[in-house]
Formats: sequence, structure tokens, C-alpha cells
Amino acid sequence: MITNYQIKFICSLHQKKFRDENQQYIAEGPKIISEIIENNFSVNSIFARKEWIEKNEALLHSKDISAFEVSEKELLRISSLITPNQVLAVLNIPEQKELSDENLKGIVLALDQISDPGNFGTIIRTADWFGIKTIICSENCVELYNPKVIQASMGSFMRIKIFYTNLEEAMHQCRGKMTVYGACTDGIEIQKAEKNKDSLIIIGNESKGISPCLEKYIQTKITIPAQNIFASPHAESLNASIAAALVSYEFTK
Amino acid sequence: MITNYQIKFICSLHQKKFRDENQQYIAEGPKIISEIIENNFSVNSIFARKEWIEKNEALLHSKDISAFEVSEKELLRISSLITPNQVLAVLNIPEQKELSDENLKGIVLALDQISDPGNFGTIIRTADWFGIKTIICSENCVELYNPKVIQASMGSFMRIKIFYTNLEEAMHQCRGKMTVYGACTDGIEIQKAEKNKDSLIIIGNESKGISPCLEKYIQTKITIPAQNIFASPHAESLNASIAAALVSYEFTK
Repeated sequence: MITNYQIKFICSLHQKKFRDENQQYIAEGPKIISEIIENNFSVNSIFARKEWIEKNEALLHSKDISAFEVSEKELLRISSLITPNQVLAVLNIPEQKELSDENLKGIVLALDQISDPGNFGTIIRTADWFGIKTIICSENCVELYNPKVIQASMGSFMRIKIFYTNLEEAMHQCRGKMTVYGACTDGIEIQKAEKNKDSLIIIGNESKGISPCLEKYIQTKITIPAQNIFASPHAESLNASIAAALVSYEFTK
Repeated sequence: MITNYQIKFICSLHQKKFRDENQQYIAEGPKIISEIIENNFSVNSIFARKEWIEKNEALLHSKDISAFEVSEKELLRISSLITPNQVLAVLNIPEQKELSDENLKGIVLALDQISDPGNFGTIIRTADWFGIKTIICSENCVELYNPKVIQASMGSFMRIKIFYTNLEEAMHQCRGKMTVYGACTDGIEIQKAEKNKDSLIIIGNESKGISPCLEKYIQTKITIPAQNIFASPHAESLNASIAAALVSYEFTK
């Protein structure tokens, strides 16, 4: 059973304004919700089809979580997806931790104004695949708790430490600890670049690239070489999540 | 000036049914439309803001194309985008060519039931970047002329030969001409795989992977190794467009 008030409230969480106000967000689908519960993420409430509740009775009981049963139609009303999938959870946004020096080791991605939620979610998922533990986002990056980011990350948002901060300040903090790389179109070929164990790689905005104010911090510009550079015309750039994936692959292999 | 009839017609082209019926599709944004005109793609009509028309007067004149002026509000009504961008074109779908033996050389991607339009568009864009000339799609792949595919491909759809066909038949056609690879989770590490000059690589569906009926044609299974395989839990897979990008990169570098 779900009340009209609950429906209205959940739908409000599709919008950033109300997520900020209530410090809550939503996630959907059996796989991601099971993982959330198993990982002891802070669950506010769960709305699910009868079948899902029956199947997950033991899990819910073990974590002392109850679930509201909803009809197909009700699930469609509260879902952010075109095709809702059995279960939706309202979750509490955890307190944001400050970027500390211990996060500044290994391979770190710094996202400069990534604005597409699908791209951001995919970058998180790919980073998780390649064992990258930290992503630093500029303050004007798309919000982590946007439902599209959560869904595209496929649960990987639970395993990556994600910080929102002023990237210039983060660059200062990095000094002497990490080598700073920038993914550009005029750098040295990524295969040929010397890759340090502690590397921070800046990925720029989808259309504008890396902010001019960050350029002075870049020690090595790297480029994913196009193979049809002499063909004209050809693709002018790669999608930001593709560039991030190729960089993540090369730096962790 | 745009009529209500035109508005209704263009909006109908947001749906596959009407694209099929009319053999027309839409593309949007100054960059892609300029490229379309320059490449002599078959344009049915153009709807644009006054500024765009004035700026492109010479181009339109040289190709003998006229454009209808629309207001911001009218453009929003006909656009498939949340934020329309100056110009929308109605284009004629070209006749589909049959896959011939001359397409079966170099690096070819075979997409098995890729269903997300963003993924497909991104795969096209990335293939173009890496100089891949041919993509073969199973008949149940998402449609090339879906506006989201066209937009995500960023114009690269004009430069890649894309065929829709029965993939099993395509595999037969490949025999003796190309080595068939399959991107799987249980193959040999992609860096270590011997890569032939003429290679066809199958990329499977986002959730189901490669169809069982295609498995017998795969000569070498390849895998993009995860770097956190001993961490538990971790990302279970990569997004299909990310997998296709890493494969394209490794086979063309």
C-alpha cells in the first residue's frame, strides 16, 4: 500500500531541488537494491511488487527493513524509468566526506564539469571495473544522486569514493603526491606516456574540454590517438565516458 | 513559418513507426546539419532559427536548399531534444545496401541486439574515431534512425557503413575472409589475443551478452580484464559502448 502523499514525495526526488532539501535519493531494480541492502546503505523505505518482497523476505528481515507493496501501476508512477523493474528504494544521502591526502594515491580520475548523467554513471562503473577507488568531481559536475547517474553506475557508486570539490584546490592538494595528467586532443599518445603509480587524470567537459584555469596544473597532456586522422572529415572527439574508459584502461593495465 | 501540419508530421518522426512509413528521419544541431548538407545527404526540409539561416545562407544557396524559419517555441515543439539547438532537418532515409564481400575486410564490428540508442550512437562515433569503416547490426538492434542514435553518433553515422542483417548469415559470409572474435567475460585477455588484419568482433546485448546461436562462429573469445577481480563485490560488467571502445582501440592501435 502506498499513499498519495508518498507517491508525490517520491516523484519529488526525481528533482535535484528536493533531493537536496530532503537529503534523500532513489535507486531502482532488484540487483542494485539487493546490493544496497547487503552493503548496509542507509535505506529510508522500499516500494516493491509482491513477488520481489516474497523473494527477499529473508534479506529484508535480516536487516530489519520493511517494504511497501505496490501495484505495477503505482510503481510506474513513482519510477524514474520508462520500464520500472520490481522495486524502488528511497535512500538517505550519506554525509559528504572531505577529500583527504589518503585518497590521493593510486589512479584517481578528476571530472571537470561532466554534465551528462549517463556519462558520469558509466565512468563510475568503468572505474570500478578497473579498480580505481577515487573520483574527484568539480562542483559543477552533474549530481551523483541524479537517478540516471545511479542507474548507469549499476551499483558501482557504492564502491567508489566520490568527492565534490573545487578542482583547483584539489590540484594544490595533489602537489608532490601525484602526477597530474589531462586528457586532451593535443597531448602525447597515451600508449607512449610515462604513467606513474600515483596519477590523477583530468577528464574535461563533454563539449568544452578541460577548464582553462586547470591547465597550469597539468604536467602531462595525453591523447587517445585517432586512427583516421588523414581522412576528412572524421569524428572530432570521443564521448567523455569513452575517453575516461580508455584512460582508465591504459593507466591500470 | 511552420504549419501545424508540419509540426505534427515532424513530431511523428520521433517514432519508429512513422519513420518506417515515411522513410524519413530527423537530425538536429548546427554542427551535424552543416555536415549533412556538405556531404550531400538527401535533405527533405530544414527548420531553423533566423540566426542560423542567416549564418548559413551561402551553404544553403550553394546546395539549393531552403530553410523554414521557426521561433524558439516552435523549435521546442518539433525537437526531440530537451534543449533544442537552432536547427532541425528532416532527411530521407537512404536505400539500405546489401552487405557485400568488399565490406568484409579490416576491422568490422558486429552488434548483436544492442538496444540502447545512446550506446549504439556512441559505438558509431568511437568506430569512426578509430577508423573502423563497417558495422554490421543484427536485425533486432536499435534502429539507426532513432533520433538518440543520430545525436549520440555526432555526425559519425554519415561516415560508417552500417548494415542490418541476419548475423548468422553474415557469419557464414565471413568464413575464410575474417577471423571472428567475441567480446565475452570468459575469453583470453584482449592484450594477449592475436589480432588479425581482417577481424570481425561481436559485441553482445547490454544484459544478455552474445546470442547462443552465434557462439559456434566465434574463433577467439576476448575479454577486457577487470583490475579488481579479487575485490568483492565489484562491477560485474562494462557498458556495451565501453566494451566496444576498448576492443576498437586494441584492434586498431
